[in-house]
Amino acid sequence: MPIARDLSAKSIFSDRISDVPKSFIREILKVAVDPSVISFAGGLPNRKLFPVAEIKQAANRVLDEYGRDVLQYSNTEGFPELRKYISRRYREKQNLQIPVDNILITNGSQQGLDLLGKVLLNQMDEAVIEEPGYLGAIQAFSVYRASFQPVPVSEEGMEIARLQAVMSQGAPKLIYTVPNFQNPSGISYSDANRLAVADLVRNTSTLLIEDDPYGDLQFEGVKKTSFKKLIPENTILLGSFSKTVVPSFRLGWIAAPDQILEKLVIAKQAADLHTNNFAQYVIFRYIKDNDFNGHISKIVAVYRNQRNAMIESLRQYFPPEIKYTKPEGGMFLWVTLPRQMSSMKLFEIAIKDKVAFVPGHPFYVNKKEVNTLRLNFSCVDEETIRIGINRLGQAIKQLLTA
Amino acid sequence: MPIARDLSAKSIFSDRISDVPKSFIREILKVAVDPSVISFAGGLPNRKLFPVAEIKQAANRVLDEYGRDVLQYSNTEGFPELRKYISRRYREKQNLQIPVDNILITNGSQQGLDLLGKVLLNQMDEAVIEEPGYLGAIQAFSVYRASFQPVPVSEEGMEIARLQAVMSQGAPKLIYTVPNFQNPSGISYSDANRLAVADLVRNTSTLLIEDDPYGDLQFEGVKKTSFKKLIPENTILLGSFSKTVVPSFRLGWIAAPDQILEKLVIAKQAADLHTNNFAQYVIFRYIKDNDFNGHISKIVAVYRNQRNAMIESLRQYFPPEIKYTKPEGGMFLWVTLPRQMSSMKLFEIAIKDKVAFVPGHPFYVNKKEVNTLRLNFSCVDEETIRIGINRLGQAIKQLLTA
Repeated sequence: MPIARDLSAKSIFSDRISDVPKSFIREILKVAVDPSVISFAGGLPNRKLFPVAEIKQAANRVLDEYGRDVLQYSNTEGFPELRKYISRRYREKQNLQIPVDNILITNGSQQGLDLLGKVLLNQMDEAVIEEPGYLGAIQAFSVYRASFQPVPVSEEGMEIARLQAVMSQGAPKLIYTVPNFQNPSGISYSDANRLAVADLVRNTSTLLIEDDPYGDLQFEGVKKTSFKKLIPENTILLGSFSKTVVPSFRLGWIAAPDQILEKLVIAKQAADLHTNNFAQYVIFRYIKDNDFNGHISKIVAVYRNQRNAMIESLRQYFPPEIKYTKPEGGMFLWVTLPRQMSSMKLFEIAIKDKVAFVPGHPFYVNKKEVNTLRLNFSCVDEETIRIGINRLGQAIKQLLTA
Repeated sequence: MPIARDLSAKSIFSDRISDVPKSFIREILKVAVDPSVISFAGGLPNRKLFPVAEIKQAANRVLDEYGRDVLQYSNTEGFPELRKYISRRYREKQNLQIPVDNILITNGSQQGLDLLGKVLLNQMDEAVIEEPGYLGAIQAFSVYRASFQPVPVSEEGMEIARLQAVMSQGAPKLIYTVPNFQNPSGISYSDANRLAVADLVRNTSTLLIEDDPYGDLQFEGVKKTSFKKLIPENTILLGSFSKTVVPSFRLGWIAAPDQILEKLVIAKQAADLHTNNFAQYVIFRYIKDNDFNGHISKIVAVYRNQRNAMIESLRQYFPPEIKYTKPEGGMFLWVTLPRQMSSMKLFEIAIKDKVAFVPGHPFYVNKKEVNTLRLNFSCVDEETIRIGINRLGQAIKQLLTA
């Protein structure tokens, strides 16, 4: 006879799922929906910039021309024309040679991270993660029970001494990086830092994941060198249309060496067969029929102004001992409070004053209480940024004198 | 110094990915694209029945009314109105009470299988699988290194004695079933069989996955009782719009008990954040603005006629010793050749005679050479079915006399 066991018992679940941190940000966002709250908490692109009319036109054209074809099951690798476009764009924009066959379309970059964890990570395999690092990557690799090796990042990039120490203990399975306008901190790796990281990784078995969802959102300066250029055999590049077209379509991609891509395709097939084919056609058609680079320039202009407004307001309203990054692109900046100050305590005061942000701790793999926080500048207009940062400055002053 | 290792070495990959069978069907389908080949190999719904104009209308209405909202990031659980509709439909069609909060929208049912494997299966956990069983489930659970326990199915349903023997060795983690018009065999579990299976599972910790992508495609008879009705606490129900609307949108769902759904949401968030929100709105709008049940009736009428044509042709053209199932719905039937005959050998002859099918072995977890094969009747019109089955009958006769 089967043994009766309580269905609610922990034992019905896999060990891996118990290791995954719940998204603290989801909880934060629930608080921030109150319309009187000015929220710097979200991680969203600005909806005012979505090309709704152009997407509609593209959807109609795709259905008129390819109706039944685009609605049928499709291949796991993705729509060939879209993959060709991605390959061509890498060549034209970054002088990167990435054959079409090395590109797999995914349900957003997040699926790329899940598939990479799936095909690469055995339990307790070492994964270097930026500190602070992208929460979605921490979640994705936690599922596969990675042993995280945090390496601090600053406005220069990765802390080379720390990375060297980690590498000297044996090559980790992977290094996860967001070298351009990082989430959460907004920092970018300098070219010198990239070279130093590449020198440590070259000729090892370590794979470097270069997650680049924000690379096109560059406000100033020149484009820095991709790791794919420096250490092509070790680099897996992730990209996304979520920040440059729309996020809802869940369209991203992985560019990886042959053998890795082959395994990723097997994993993708088992995970969901393929990505929405209609969405792939619509995005491709949108790009083909419109001035995509012009659209990106518009996004960049708006976000640049909003970043400027935020930096100016921080200078004006924050006590001088508060440090913050000055991102050259992207959607976020990172604030460091005095050492003893808890960003969670600040959050509790700030939310009463109707301003929200994300306290820093979910971006670390092993910290519960930190003095850092993330501010988003992509979704809030300049005037509202000034009001919100003023409120936040008041909250900080209140906590400083408490 | 890091140890230089060969990047092509097997060691860079996780153990789990080496266990996943490559899709044999993908290879078969490559052969079958030759337009002179009559293919019963595909597993696709009939594209002629896709409601292209209605989908276009729905897409336009959604973009006109909710433009920016539907293009933004969205919540992991899925579009609330669509989940409400699914809940209501279960109540109206099957008298099943499934609260909206117990429904999670997934990227097709395949993602449901991946998420279930992820949250439930530790390495070597036992998973009962139908023999023959759905290839996609075998792939999805292989990723999580399940120990498969095959239980034969016939036109009655699961072999109860075998299931009882498996259960008596300790409750397996899960039982995967497609009780209505199964892929690959077309069989359905009788009500008596469902009761017997339910009796074995009730009051154990085993979870029964009831995958029901074909349930609406019923040609005759009355709807049989869902396991969700018989053993609600143990049953996880999977559904899909791929066979009733369009597959490209990758829209399915999981209905699961509270605690399991909570874990699935965490896993889904780490896997891809959420399902394409635009696609969810469009499907909901399509259903709301059109006679969805009338559309399903049209599909049923076409598939019923094609099944009839196939059964008649099998009777006419196949030697009498060849056995086959008589499905009451769905898209497939299952042929059993004489014991010594290899369906792979038959495939080699048949493809020269310009007719294709799927040899049975990928639907078993541990067999390389079998005397069974799958025929699809949803994609081929009646006249072509007659020609194709005639060709296949000739190939069988050729092999019988070889």
